[in-house]
Amino acid sequence: MSEEKLPKQSENFSEWYNQLIQRAELADYAPVRGCMVVRPYGWALWENIQKALDSRFKQTGHVNAAFPMFIPMSFLEKEKEHVEGFSPELAIVTIGGGQTLEEPLVVRPTSETIIGHMYSKWIKSYRDLPVLINQWANVVRWEMRTRMFLRTLEFYWQEGHTAHETAEEAEEETLKILKLYTDFAVNEAAVPVIPGVKSNAEKFAGAKHSYSIEAMMLDTKALQSGTSHNLGQNFAKAFEIQYLDRNNELQYAWTTSWGVSTRFVGAIIMTHGDDQGLIMPPRLAPIQIVIVPIFRTDEDRFKVMDVVRKIESNLSQFRVKVDDRDNVSPGFKFNHWELRGVPLRIEIGPRDVDNQTVVVAQRDTPGKSGKLFLSMENLADQLTNILDEFHNRLLQKAIDFRDSHIFEPKDYEDFQEIVQNGWAYSYWCGDAACETAIKNETKATTRCSPLDQEKSNGNCIFCGKPAEYKTYFAKAY
Amino acid sequence: MSEEKLPKQSENFSEWYNQLIQRAELADYAPVRGCMVVRPYGWALWENIQKALDSRFKQTGHVNAAFPMFIPMSFLEKEKEHVEGFSPELAIVTIGGGQTLEEPLVVRPTSETIIGHMYSKWIKSYRDLPVLINQWANVVRWEMRTRMFLRTLEFYWQEGHTAHETAEEAEEETLKILKLYTDFAVNEAAVPVIPGVKSNAEKFAGAKHSYSIEAMMLDTKALQSGTSHNLGQNFAKAFEIQYLDRNNELQYAWTTSWGVSTRFVGAIIMTHGDDQGLIMPPRLAPIQIVIVPIFRTDEDRFKVMDVVRKIESNLSQFRVKVDDRDNVSPGFKFNHWELRGVPLRIEIGPRDVDNQTVVVAQRDTPGKSGKLFLSMENLADQLTNILDEFHNRLLQKAIDFRDSHIFEPKDYEDFQEIVQNGWAYSYWCGDAACETAIKNETKATTRCSPLDQEKSNGNCIFCGKPAEYKTYFAKAY
Repeated sequence: MSEEKLPKQSENFSEWYNQLIQRAELADYAPVRGCMVVRPYGWALWENIQKALDSRFKQTGHVNAAFPMFIPMSFLEKEKEHVEGFSPELAIVTIGGGQTLEEPLVVRPTSETIIGHMYSKWIKSYRDLPVLINQWANVVRWEMRTRMFLRTLEFYWQEGHTAHETAEEAEEETLKILKLYTDFAVNEAAVPVIPGVKSNAEKFAGAKHSYSIEAMMLDTKALQSGTSHNLGQNFAKAFEIQYLDRNNELQYAWTTSWGVSTRFVGAIIMTHGDDQGLIMPPRLAPIQIVIVPIFRTDEDRFKVMDVVRKIESNLSQFRVKVDDRDNVSPGFKFNHWELRGVPLRIEIGPRDVDNQTVVVAQRDTPGKSGKLFLSMENLADQLTNILDEFHNRLLQKAIDFRDSHIFEPKDYEDFQEIVQNGWAYSYWCGDAACETAIKNETKATTRCSPLDQEKSNGNCIFCGKPAEYKTYFAKAY
Repeated sequence: MSEEKLPKQSENFSEWYNQLIQRAELADYAPVRGCMVVRPYGWALWENIQKALDSRFKQTGHVNAAFPMFIPMSFLEKEKEHVEGFSPELAIVTIGGGQTLEEPLVVRPTSETIIGHMYSKWIKSYRDLPVLINQWANVVRWEMRTRMFLRTLEFYWQEGHTAHETAEEAEEETLKILKLYTDFAVNEAAVPVIPGVKSNAEKFAGAKHSYSIEAMMLDTKALQSGTSHNLGQNFAKAFEIQYLDRNNELQYAWTTSWGVSTRFVGAIIMTHGDDQGLIMPPRLAPIQIVIVPIFRTDEDRFKVMDVVRKIESNLSQFRVKVDDRDNVSPGFKFNHWELRGVPLRIEIGPRDVDNQTVVVAQRDTPGKSGKLFLSMENLADQLTNILDEFHNRLLQKAIDFRDSHIFEPKDYEDFQEIVQNGWAYSYWCGDAACETAIKNETKATTRCSPLDQEKSNGNCIFCGKPAEYKTYFAKAY
């Protein structure tokens, strides 16, 4: 079995990422270019992400449904910006049941159009509003340069699509979801994201405006990790989503859409991982605790395994794996689970059984300093606290890393240097020409402009004209 | 709002089914021929089906993963029977990112081929076996005659794919899943299915043999509600899934596949529904209990709603909906939830509040005889029992219906009459010629031959030759 070392993050971050995904068995390359197979360990992480988001959606009154993945080509053409944005990336079915189709079918790149069509059938009166529907689905975008989890031809996501009576309600929903995503990222994944509004150039094709949560990866590049779009009446007008209002007058509805995808798995890998491999945030980790029994003789085996099974059953509130393989050494097992980022490893040997203690190794704190020596008594309660502290530590470390790589540039020269290895937080006049010039010259794009900042007086980092708000600029995935 | 009556089951079963699905808002027609939109109420039912199956899969050691939906056309051609079975039904992507693809991509009709390809990469040694993977996915089969839930171009399912060291283990897995499906159908959905082996003509394209669970719908037609296939080494040979065995010799693995789909929603509708609408089996019902407050004055409203909210919070272990709409009458609400098949309706009026009692109406027992007058004290415990009894009653009713429509024909003339409005359970010699002739003459097909029957001596119902086993014959969906 392969014991090769991963490339170091500092030497080749990109190779570290690619090899880690394969070796930790999160995903594998599919036979079709740009597609991935999400393997059981990767899918278990995604399932935990799904559960954490889905329960938040349901608590806020949303329900799930399923819309078809085939969309008539003509639907996409109904919203001008939308079709311009997506038409270069479409996969198109032209043959069905051996026959050439009269109208080609697009494999959904996103579902605003088909859902808009259905909403126009379902929504008749203000009494039918709001409609708060989400779907968990696969979507396809024919990307030229692909990367596991970050950008694949087919990917998995949730897409929420809501319709409202008023502009205010739609905006409220869009912001509510932005907040929900932030809460999920911070409190479940320990990924300290920055929520904010996207520039016009970076907004969703067809949206009035878009918000996103942006995370800094360990190579300082930004990863857009979730988006929430206020679609205004654009799609309602394109698909005739109309309702009779409280005065019995026909109005167009106001709609929103929002999504988080398997891309978030990439965010977790690149926020927490280290040279030894993954570090899973405890609340989403497919395995939170691995137990490695340690013994040499058959007599000890019996003695140790008996206690291991008892402890396993006492820890049923956690996701626990007992690694009882007899063809590999404890050292091999340690590396195996370190690579896979299991937060806690419990070691139990014959002496631990005698002393009624266990040794707990913490994945984020290697060596002796991270080892805890715990009594078997009350173990579950102790581990609950230890996992909470683990989460807090991961989050704080990620915040510290991020904050030490964000700078406010004093001038454009400074800006150019900053975005080589960090984010620039600077005034921008809002003009697309400045944004484009910056992108062409530095490869840095606008990420988002935080909502909680106060209006202030400054000068655009590029053109020097007066500007009132600051925006994050960074190279991005 | 529409108060039209559904067509009666006895007058037009097919129209009853189609209209019920629309009016109960389980699903709607999509703009693409043969596709459906599963609406929130229908999807909530499917989510409960998913949970019930998924927990059973995980308890038996299976894990979930996700394989791409695009399969190179050449993969399908590797297993001869498989491609013959599926090629007339394929949806094919020929354009991606504006370019004509060199090799067209099939949208998966099922995933044995692409999963076989990946297994050949992952499986090297007997230590890698068994592989026990399931995926929840959408699949596409270009059917000419479609029917909501029963047969749609795109549908949702789980497909398990396992690989084993020995023929025995693969057969054991195939039968384990058949048993798991039976347990799910009976104990969660109250659908009394008959498990058995399929004939060669009816087996999965590429399988060694297939098993299925077969359910009788209220029009006496059969619905194949789940299948489990022993693939032998057919796919292992086509995709070179080989492993080094315990003697260090290269062997082909033995594989299985098995699935339950959104078709099962159709099984639930047509097993339990009546002229008033759906009857949801309590353990899968999206809403198990609806509470309808009843009052006329504002004073009573306050008094009643206060208690309704308290009861709602006491019943948090159930899926409860409070229908507090103020623009429709209680009678309207009763019809609304009856159509949707909610098992129990709790009515609470001012007098109930005074007496600390509630009235419970049971969906399957209309009129006064089904009404229960319960004390508010200990309500949750009482309702637990009532829902269990409801489940048992549904199941028994379905068994009685089924058993009263299965007959053992004395001769072929008798057989022909039986399958007009029931199932024939009769000896069959196993010859495909007899099976085909029966199908052509009566439209009845072999459904399955039960595994628990003892060998006996009889004569084939068609040709009269000696036969040892009996098989169910029926018209089927």
